[in-house]
Amino acid sequence: MVRLLGIDPGLRCTGWGIIEAHGNRLRHVGDGVIPTDSDDSVPDRLKALHDALSALLALHRPDEAAVEETYVNRNGAATLKLGYARGVALLAPALAGIPVLEYAAKSVKMAVVGTGGADKAQVQAMVRRLLPGAELRRADAADALAVAICHAHHRASRVAWSAGTRTA
Amino acid sequence: MVRLLGIDPGLRCTGWGIIEAHGNRLRHVGDGVIPTDSDDSVPDRLKALHDALSALLALHRPDEAAVEETYVNRNGAATLKLGYARGVALLAPALAGIPVLEYAAKSVKMAVVGTGGADKAQVQAMVRRLLPGAELRRADAADALAVAICHAHHRASRVAWSAGTRTA
Repeated sequence: MVRLLGIDPGLRCTGWGIIEAHGNRLRHVGDGVIPTDSDDSVPDRLKALHDALSALLALHRPDEAAVEETYVNRNGAATLKLGYARGVALLAPALAGIPVLEYAAKSVKMAVVGTGGADKAQVQAMVRRLLPGAELRRADAADALAVAICHAHHRASRVAWSAGTRTA
Repeated sequence: MVRLLGIDPGLRCTGWGIIEAHGNRLRHVGDGVIPTDSDDSVPDRLKALHDALSALLALHRPDEAAVEETYVNRNGAATLKLGYARGVALLAPALAGIPVLEYAAKSVKMAVVGTGGADKAQVQAMVRRLLPGAELRRADAADALAVAICHAHHRASRVAWSAGTRTA
């Protein structure tokens, strides 16, 4: 059994989701969003995000984390702000001493729906089907669970592949 | 007397510089660069940057920090990586409980040289003149000292202005 944290970072709102993978079986543990107050300074917003992620890591003790590599084809200032949030999202698990992997949005859709061109509604429907019990009231949290599922799939193939080579 | 930390962030190499300001007089305290190993994963590189900045903050105990808002008109992937490093650079002083201010590259040049269109050599020459004793062997460290000087100037005018309004 392995416990995985998925993160969909954003300065305004960061989604998180935790699942457990027992081989190919997945279980929903928890999910939520970390909003930051746009009236606060950027350093204070990054501190709020960092503190919330650190608290989540201490509480749920995931074994590994995965972060979505969101779309970057926007204007420079918006991309830079997204970079701040992603930097903090990549840092927190590293400080907690657990591996952090990055997945492109396309890989997440491919792993969850089976096609890289899936839309948000299709991803959410599949997350709901793969994780019975997850309510998914918030889109950012659903995206974070999707990243965690993507990581579970990649992890399972890696483990199977590595087990295969070991017996060869 | 106030002690100021300037940071010129980059994922490959982050410059830092510490000065003390006694009214309009400036004193060089220290400077250097924090390189990260491009063979390491991005989360590990961000952790290395975070750990080094946290150690600097604990050692030198600056009262305030200033970060250069570097040029963003590059491709999305490069801007995103710069965002990671800037996010971590803005976070570390916030976690240490000190104010962090951001200055555009143009404001830094204006404060140090007197014109927003100054080139790197002009900035370095002025940093050398304003901070006798600073060797400035590394360009990133010189840029970080320039940000600290810029913050000292803005701070001094703010204090003067606030003193003026108080007596009014």
